[in-house]
Amino acid sequence: MRGTTLGFGFRELARDGEARVGLLVTPHGELETPVFMPVGTQGSVKSLGPEEVAATGARVVLGNTYHLMLRPGAELVARFGGLHGFMKWPHAVLTDSGGFQAFSLADNCRVSDDGFEFRSHLDGSRAALSPESAMDVQSQLGSDIAMQLDVCPPGAAPRSEVELACRRTSAWARRCLAAKAPWQAAFGIVQGGSDLALRRSHLDDIASLPFDGIALGGFSVGEPIEIMHARLAELAPHLDRERPRYLMGVGTPADLLRAVAAGIDMFDCVLPTRNARNGQALTRHGRIVVKQARYKDDPLPLDPECDCPTCTAGYARGYLRHLFLAQEILVMRLLTVHNLHLYGTLMREARTAIREGRYARYVAAALAGLAAEPTG
Amino acid sequence: MRGTTLGFGFRELARDGEARVGLLVTPHGELETPVFMPVGTQGSVKSLGPEEVAATGARVVLGNTYHLMLRPGAELVARFGGLHGFMKWPHAVLTDSGGFQAFSLADNCRVSDDGFEFRSHLDGSRAALSPESAMDVQSQLGSDIAMQLDVCPPGAAPRSEVELACRRTSAWARRCLAAKAPWQAAFGIVQGGSDLALRRSHLDDIASLPFDGIALGGFSVGEPIEIMHARLAELAPHLDRERPRYLMGVGTPADLLRAVAAGIDMFDCVLPTRNARNGQALTRHGRIVVKQARYKDDPLPLDPECDCPTCTAGYARGYLRHLFLAQEILVMRLLTVHNLHLYGTLMREARTAIREGRYARYVAAALAGLAAEPTG
Repeated sequence: MRGTTLGFGFRELARDGEARVGLLVTPHGELETPVFMPVGTQGSVKSLGPEEVAATGARVVLGNTYHLMLRPGAELVARFGGLHGFMKWPHAVLTDSGGFQAFSLADNCRVSDDGFEFRSHLDGSRAALSPESAMDVQSQLGSDIAMQLDVCPPGAAPRSEVELACRRTSAWARRCLAAKAPWQAAFGIVQGGSDLALRRSHLDDIASLPFDGIALGGFSVGEPIEIMHARLAELAPHLDRERPRYLMGVGTPADLLRAVAAGIDMFDCVLPTRNARNGQALTRHGRIVVKQARYKDDPLPLDPECDCPTCTAGYARGYLRHLFLAQEILVMRLLTVHNLHLYGTLMREARTAIREGRYARYVAAALAGLAAEPTG
Repeated sequence: MRGTTLGFGFRELARDGEARVGLLVTPHGELETPVFMPVGTQGSVKSLGPEEVAATGARVVLGNTYHLMLRPGAELVARFGGLHGFMKWPHAVLTDSGGFQAFSLADNCRVSDDGFEFRSHLDGSRAALSPESAMDVQSQLGSDIAMQLDVCPPGAAPRSEVELACRRTSAWARRCLAAKAPWQAAFGIVQGGSDLALRRSHLDDIASLPFDGIALGGFSVGEPIEIMHARLAELAPHLDRERPRYLMGVGTPADLLRAVAAGIDMFDCVLPTRNARNGQALTRHGRIVVKQARYKDDPLPLDPECDCPTCTAGYARGYLRHLFLAQEILVMRLLTVHNLHLYGTLMREARTAIREGRYARYVAAALAGLAAEPTG
């Protein structure tokens, strides 16, 4: 049985090996996969307005349930018409369940068969997330796609902890489906750490449920990244083709391109936005740390071949370095726009390469560039 | 004798009482006065890109010589084509002389007949500004309009200190004119504190010199604001009509409108940009402190009648409040755009009212609104 949420759908449009182009239909527009979802943690993709986010090619953003339920509160967001109305973002929104942040950010988080109990990292107040309340909060946030509550163990967790995480995630999957709003799509989450057998058995269970999409959680949580790519390649043949596949919290540009080769359709990660605010520009020729003295009088844009607004406006590396050293917040925006534009561009190029049956060659060339040093 | 810098000029286009509309011609475009110049302290109007600054109606920005000479250094800016090329700002630029910031921001500032000696507030390194070096730095910054080095005493300074400031400013005026780049317009600065006789005699001296414009410095430095407005009204008949008049560092929207009535043409102030970053929106119906609880679930834009990008996009006061409390930097930009748009709009409306011979009525109505509480 497959997801049947009204107004939501997915269809494979083209395939090249395991890599594929898909059409994702949401109540807030259609979009093609593979797609990267910029992270709008607390109602804003940090430093950008919605029109700038859309200009990077993004047509879906991620909102963080944990942050938003604590501040300003989901009921308040609902009164503004959900995240779409609150942020003035007209395209699709996916919300996570809040469990991951409750576990990693909150104080005194305790997990039981019933969910998470914790204290807000903002003011110490008590809060909780159960499978039912996680879905309720996400329905108030009004996202197009809600994620089930899951347990995500760290990469170094012992097998018994990973097994328990799978069992709880499976039980919560059923409770989330029972509790979800009928108009909201819901994705199930596959756990299992780096153990292929655990991954496969948990995938079998989650995939048997009528979710609208299947997410792979618990990757990029401290394990060697090559382990993740190996597991993705091994899992690929076992994923059904009718539903979108979402690799949570991943990753670098190279990680995305490699994961697309294993059939992944959707990604989110704070890397392009967070690194931008830390002064790091990602280019198809490697990374630029703008504060470095080598850029002091460099008149070139971040990437002379890039067609993002920051590069086409001609902002020099030397100017961006000055803004960063002077702590001018404009530089955060200029680098964020550039980095998200790169992610959007790579996803668009990937879709074209898949359609043209040359994805393997495209990835090989792109990875060689991404690993290089910028020459300028 | 009047200013004769090639490519620079001023002409009065219309007059209503002492208020007037002027045309300012610069190598980077023509613009109409009265005009407000947003402050771009260290190569950026804080939080905005140049296209956003221009969209507020601004066609000239102010750069701070003190900040830029210390970081990144004027020679470096020159290598990028001056401030225009560095910031990618295609319109006019005015730079201050650096003296005011050296006196108020630097460590161990000493003033003599030869200028200022001080230590950088950034790293304690020794630096100095003489009339000649102030003009040299400004020519490297490439501004369309350079300001003479002056001494600006605080509002509570004794008469002897104000007299000395006038004498030094007069001597430096001549040295600055001798040192200025031939392609760069230069404005002289009238000091004299709150003393009308001192003001008039210093105006007579500065106005006798071939500056391209006359600035009034030493206002809004701690004296009661009504004193400033009284002095402006008294000085108005004594200002020649052939040159632009610039009231430095002023002020609130109401201050600008009242000063325009006294014949002032140009303004700069950090108020609209700094207050924005502190969460304060200025509207024609009074100020909005966005963090206040009263705006928690307020769905209205800052000013429902405002046509700035922030208000027309429909960002709710409740959303802006959330962004401010969550320390999302997007809110700084949204409020800065709004505040600068108000300044640009008031200056545009003032020009129209002057042309139509109804400036007194326009100001009376605008001041009543500005003093009100926002009703929403």
